[in-house]
Amino acid sequence: MTYKQSLEILDKIKAARRVLVNCHQRPDVDSISSALSMCVALKQMGKEVKVICPDDKLPELSFLSCFNEFEKIDYNTFDFSKYDLFMVLDSASPEVVTGSKTIPLPEIETVVIDHHHTSIEFGKINLIDAERSATTELLYLLFEDWNIDITKELATSLLTGILGDTGAFEYHNTTPRTLQIAADLMSLGADKDGILLKIFRSKQMNLLKFWGKVLDKLEVDASGKFTWCAIPYSVYSALGEPQTARESASSLFSRMIEGTEFGIVMLEESPGELRASFRARSTGFDVSKIATALGGGGHAGAAGVTVINGSFGDSVKKVVETARRFV
Amino acid sequence: MTYKQSLEILDKIKAARRVLVNCHQRPDVDSISSALSMCVALKQMGKEVKVICPDDKLPELSFLSCFNEFEKIDYNTFDFSKYDLFMVLDSASPEVVTGSKTIPLPEIETVVIDHHHTSIEFGKINLIDAERSATTELLYLLFEDWNIDITKELATSLLTGILGDTGAFEYHNTTPRTLQIAADLMSLGADKDGILLKIFRSKQMNLLKFWGKVLDKLEVDASGKFTWCAIPYSVYSALGEPQTARESASSLFSRMIEGTEFGIVMLEESPGELRASFRARSTGFDVSKIATALGGGGHAGAAGVTVINGSFGDSVKKVVETARRFV
Repeated sequence: MTYKQSLEILDKIKAARRVLVNCHQRPDVDSISSALSMCVALKQMGKEVKVICPDDKLPELSFLSCFNEFEKIDYNTFDFSKYDLFMVLDSASPEVVTGSKTIPLPEIETVVIDHHHTSIEFGKINLIDAERSATTELLYLLFEDWNIDITKELATSLLTGILGDTGAFEYHNTTPRTLQIAADLMSLGADKDGILLKIFRSKQMNLLKFWGKVLDKLEVDASGKFTWCAIPYSVYSALGEPQTARESASSLFSRMIEGTEFGIVMLEESPGELRASFRARSTGFDVSKIATALGGGGHAGAAGVTVINGSFGDSVKKVVETARRFV
Repeated sequence: MTYKQSLEILDKIKAARRVLVNCHQRPDVDSISSALSMCVALKQMGKEVKVICPDDKLPELSFLSCFNEFEKIDYNTFDFSKYDLFMVLDSASPEVVTGSKTIPLPEIETVVIDHHHTSIEFGKINLIDAERSATTELLYLLFEDWNIDITKELATSLLTGILGDTGAFEYHNTTPRTLQIAADLMSLGADKDGILLKIFRSKQMNLLKFWGKVLDKLEVDASGKFTWCAIPYSVYSALGEPQTARESASSLFSRMIEGTEFGIVMLEESPGELRASFRARSTGFDVSKIATALGGGGHAGAAGVTVINGSFGDSVKKVVETARRFV
């Protein structure tokens, strides 16, 4: 038994008939994979299940089982009365569940299962394990405790979440246990290569053209310690505002140049609104300090901020000059 | 005992005093990591060891133990007489050992250890296991059979080779066993993130500028089935002819666009000499057929060819028109 809460949670499920499972606001791959994995497991136990989210699902995950159980809802108007239990996954606070600070959680018995070390444990039962790379990694251990049959479909959704939250094992949250669990899931039938194709290699050409613009503009700062580039709205708009433009370019290219500590990709996402993504190249540098100094936030390895400071040029200058104070 | 040849090879080593270990021509990360891992293990057994190669080593691997034992040699003139045993690693044929079809192997007792399924088993003893992602993955199992102490330094060089040959677990040669072994090596002290920083994220800016040129030129063929781009020598030359330009751009961007089967990056590497790299997006398409039709070769997932056919434009046209015949 990995988790002391496992049987208590199982008892709650056994006592329930209709169960809600959430995806958090702006759901990422791990959020949706966790919810759909839980949905499959609950159906195996004979439960009625609905997966709810304040935002849209990611269309590239349509290959996962239970994908059609996902419903985008408004937490203010949804009728929660016929549900007995709310399984809240991968969500560190109530506001990321409902999508708003002003909308409270529904008054249903709530089980929180999460891997974020910032989780505030707002459930009736809380199972938090910040050592796990992804909530799906945690669910694998929980399902073992529950003696769930890890079918090929379930192995697939669990591995999808792990690949999403570890960047295909690249990020430093990948532990030996992560790799062991991924090995188990592959042995149980999860097709790693097929999942990677769907979640990381199904881009549109306008996104790659955006990456080309970023590389064209990219420069090493005079300090030698970071790379940066800034793309104005006119360029972004002409490319049709590709999704994940700033984040994907930042993750791909900010950490590439020998000798640098971090990188910044700035994008004017709407006229006058500059958003910046910071990525640390090594684990020794904390980019969240720069983002925080500018009024943003994030993690040591990845952080961001929105700057509204007059002209495009002034905003870019503010970000770069702030970054220089930290090198 | 994983391998039936393990103890026979160990006996040969015990009987030897001075041992040569090779890296193959144009050594890649797994070739050098394998050789240096074997060097560390042999030194643990009290042997004198030299690592030889017909080409230069990769400077980014200077963090590995035994790196200074590497010597670039000419197989025609090197004095092999004082060595008792030749450990040939990661080399499918004698010509990749010596760097030339016309230079024979030295007349020393030879043990061949390899993971290529094309290996022709030219040693006195041959240990070939094509199920392993990398020769270093094979060596881990061999070292277990030998009861070698897998120190942190040895775990580091073994994991480096695996990360090199699997593209950080991205390629389809990554098996559940690969992930289990990588987990073991991390538990033994290998720093995955530090290795990735050295081998995949220590690029020069001119390489990233080249990637930008590739993205700028990249297009989806009218067939919708592949992407391609072609960079003339003038552009490559102006950027200082960055190392791995064509291969790295091809691996990164050829497999990205939804709906395509493969991608081609063409680069005029010297005036009048066009080289093309083919990469399959999914495992269902065999790009080696296209390369072979043009006189080149390679694997289903990655292949290449050199075309010398008059003008840049004519060579590009020949490659693209040949590719269209296969979609």
